[in-house]
Amino acid sequence: MRVGIIGLGLIGGSLGIDLVARGHEVIGIARRPQIREQALAGQVVHQAGDDYSLLRAVDLVFICTPIETIGTMVGAIAPHLPPHAVVTDVGSVKAPVVAVARSHWQRFVGGHPMAGKAEAGLGAAEANLFRNRPYVLTPDPDTPTDAVNAVKIIAAELGARLHCCDPNIHDRAVAWISHLPVIVSSSLIQACLQEPDSELLSLAQTLASSGFEDTSRVGGGSPELGLMMARHNRQALLHTLEVYQQVLDQLKQAVQTSNWEALERHLQQSQAARHSFLEPG
Amino acid sequence: MRVGIIGLGLIGGSLGIDLVARGHEVIGIARRPQIREQALAGQVVHQAGDDYSLLRAVDLVFICTPIETIGTMVGAIAPHLPPHAVVTDVGSVKAPVVAVARSHWQRFVGGHPMAGKAEAGLGAAEANLFRNRPYVLTPDPDTPTDAVNAVKIIAAELGARLHCCDPNIHDRAVAWISHLPVIVSSSLIQACLQEPDSELLSLAQTLASSGFEDTSRVGGGSPELGLMMARHNRQALLHTLEVYQQVLDQLKQAVQTSNWEALERHLQQSQAARHSFLEPG
Repeated sequence: MRVGIIGLGLIGGSLGIDLVARGHEVIGIARRPQIREQALAGQVVHQAGDDYSLLRAVDLVFICTPIETIGTMVGAIAPHLPPHAVVTDVGSVKAPVVAVARSHWQRFVGGHPMAGKAEAGLGAAEANLFRNRPYVLTPDPDTPTDAVNAVKIIAAELGARLHCCDPNIHDRAVAWISHLPVIVSSSLIQACLQEPDSELLSLAQTLASSGFEDTSRVGGGSPELGLMMARHNRQALLHTLEVYQQVLDQLKQAVQTSNWEALERHLQQSQAARHSFLEPG
Repeated sequence: MRVGIIGLGLIGGSLGIDLVARGHEVIGIARRPQIREQALAGQVVHQAGDDYSLLRAVDLVFICTPIETIGTMVGAIAPHLPPHAVVTDVGSVKAPVVAVARSHWQRFVGGHPMAGKAEAGLGAAEANLFRNRPYVLTPDPDTPTDAVNAVKIIAAELGARLHCCDPNIHDRAVAWISHLPVIVSSSLIQACLQEPDSELLSLAQTLASSGFEDTSRVGGGSPELGLMMARHNRQALLHTLEVYQQVLDQLKQAVQTSNWEALERHLQQSQAARHSFLEPG
């Protein structure tokens, strides 16, 4: 298959490495000449350029640019694509992206490979990043079946665990398990910083160990990523935040009224339920 | 030195292993015969029994029983101790413990070795559990200096990083970095479970990955431990919860009003501040 990848960062670069390894012909589009040279030197792509006409004979295009640019990008490349080409993206919010992208290209299939690492950029790209990771496709009833299948086949080649759902369902699900945790965790860091006694704060910082480290990890992550999630998945995030506030308030009230039975029941439920969110294996 | 250890679980057992290795004479007190046999067989202690008169010639006693029993235990062993004996504990909340314990034994020094692992019990005890971990002592102005020094010397032998502070300061510091995270994290799990659409919840559970796993870890931990923290450090925990709720509400309002500048500033601050809570090395 001839595959185009627009945007050669962590995800685009890792896709290139896997697709080259699996025998596909890979064309990379990147604005910065330095990134194109790096991608060619690293055999991440066979061809690289910044001219969309390079896509004139592709079968499949992955759009791996920042989420706010995906819709526009589909519009920009559409005049250069052959009619049979399938376009997909890797954005972590789907409903707003899919709506715009499909208005530009009927054979667009929203996608979200849920792989990542702390580092960003082409330098962090690696083989098998998507293996055993969830890969969500969000076709709607009008998406041509053969277009969906083309992306499914590639996702299977990457070794990903495929899921298909409505774009809105995807966005509401990731709000719970990915976007809400960022706000919850970031607020924990900020709350500690409100401590006015600087000696006490300093002691807290010294005593903080793995429990605090784990709970604060996603809140101390990339501000750009957190901001992007909130901007593009605003409604779903707000809903989860409201539910979270209610639950937190119930717990606070249990502590306030020394209702230890209620608190214990809650903590027992959390312990029992957590395993259902953990990855198999 | 002749050292008594009351309660041979993870902490008491690990102390025994280290103290035996460093040439101290170690006497273990445990109620269950099975634990005493296991401790003797594993060379965790030299002598084991359930009679406090075994403590008649000790120089130092570690009380490693559940937090709610520490004060009473000091009262129970006091008649059996030689006048020069120093008594310390390993409870994770200090102010209420120290108040009761010192009323029973003047040479009591509150302590909190901040080491632990997911498993509990003597079977999980291990050598060097305290090495490079914080160890907080909470003497007050009336605590005899030589008693404080005796515990300091042992903590140094364990390789721990020693900190001294007022019991109340300790409790307020651990509320921020240890007790608040449990409630924040447990509420995250509970909030997700409020999702009424079972298919969506099931998708969220499937898609949850390391970010959710980390943020939910301490909230899915031992309910007994969480309950104990809340009961015995109630005021400090309530204060941190109130500050946390305010911060969370500010973030929610930023999302609600699409005040992306405020949200970005907040996320940037969290990212920049988190490293100050992480362990050196």
